[in-house]
Amino acid sequence: MLTIVLVHPRNPLNIGAAARAMSNFGFDDLRLVGPYDVAFREVKSAVGAGSVMQTARCFDSLSEAIADCTLVVGTTTGAHREGLQTMRRLESGGKLLARHKGRAALLFGSEKFGLSNDDLSHCQWLVQIPSREEHRSMNLGQAVAVCLYELIRDPKASDPRPVVGREATVEQTEALQARLAELLELSGHYDHTAVAGSERRLRALIKRMGLTKQDTVIWLGIYRQILWKIKSTIS
Amino acid sequence: MLTIVLVHPRNPLNIGAAARAMSNFGFDDLRLVGPYDVAFREVKSAVGAGSVMQTARCFDSLSEAIADCTLVVGTTTGAHREGLQTMRRLESGGKLLARHKGRAALLFGSEKFGLSNDDLSHCQWLVQIPSREEHRSMNLGQAVAVCLYELIRDPKASDPRPVVGREATVEQTEALQARLAELLELSGHYDHTAVAGSERRLRALIKRMGLTKQDTVIWLGIYRQILWKIKSTIS
Repeated sequence: MLTIVLVHPRNPLNIGAAARAMSNFGFDDLRLVGPYDVAFREVKSAVGAGSVMQTARCFDSLSEAIADCTLVVGTTTGAHREGLQTMRRLESGGKLLARHKGRAALLFGSEKFGLSNDDLSHCQWLVQIPSREEHRSMNLGQAVAVCLYELIRDPKASDPRPVVGREATVEQTEALQARLAELLELSGHYDHTAVAGSERRLRALIKRMGLTKQDTVIWLGIYRQILWKIKSTIS
Repeated sequence: MLTIVLVHPRNPLNIGAAARAMSNFGFDDLRLVGPYDVAFREVKSAVGAGSVMQTARCFDSLSEAIADCTLVVGTTTGAHREGLQTMRRLESGGKLLARHKGRAALLFGSEKFGLSNDDLSHCQWLVQIPSREEHRSMNLGQAVAVCLYELIRDPKASDPRPVVGREATVEQTEALQARLAELLELSGHYDHTAVAGSERRLRALIKRMGLTKQDTVIWLGIYRQILWKIKSTIS
């Protein structure tokens, strides 16, 4: 169970963007510490924020917002901070967060200042998005999206459509090659002085295409049609 | 080398957000296909977009924008599309993209409609961010950020500050235990009927704290001060 806590967010668009990323990645507990009142009300109608925004709760202090959490992790660029906590890259920190039993809170600071030293003192450890040192500071909504993606990413999950169609059989590609050879022969492209070499090159050319069954059928149809046209023109 | 191509982006804020994420993660080649003129000009001054936005180029057609690329990959939610291309999750697709020698283009469609079937026909394969099926569609700037993060993430990179301080030695924790025992003794908390058991529990309690050298020194100082106070009050 993960709770996202935005501490003193200022821009209603960013609050909405954070809520949208949560909805995209399947997280629903959003808590805001002291947002500008107006901002909070405005964002209730933000595009795509949906039910996450509707159930978001406001707190006066960070302590109250994280009272029921058993792990508190802060996000930081690592700049201008006291260095009292262990700091992990998102890749390794995310793994620990995902493994945590019980409710964990992931804190994000304000757009302008990030989390204060006081906010950080509530954290067991910190996590850093591995952005460039020359430009560490990310947009709030994007930072939330990137962190949540790291938590849900699953390198072992199978691809939605790993390969379109299955690979062609040798019988199919040989049929294609024969048709193509006939076409080259008729059009005068075929090199009669080195037939064996031409055949070899043609075969390799077709193999390199890595054709699927379906695409082989399409190519066969195309060549058959051209052959028909040439033959009917000749006769 | 990766080129980010935004096809018919509408919202200048999203163009700026894409540029900012590129700067955060160290990518600099942004190309826009037919953005609204006004939008494109507005965003030149967007927060954090920096030099990426300054060097971004505009094209009239997708073909022109990707003319020099040797791999073209489209991003898609997978909805309402023809299914002519292999579709990979970002985890596996990102790996292939990162490994590609030569210039690869990663395409993002408009906020409202994504990439069209026509746009998709330019792609060797497609990549899907593993968002929830019930809410697949991500904000454009967030989608760019998440994809670029996948490309730069490095699970083998060492943490910026893996552990704050080095672990305390046994000598240090034993000294701490002795001080604490003395304190409990003086304050009347120590259980005289089961000294051995109490010592054992005290040692385990301290071990569970996983103390660093530095923190052991701080705790020792705290207990020493309290001991001094109690002793001076008693005498």
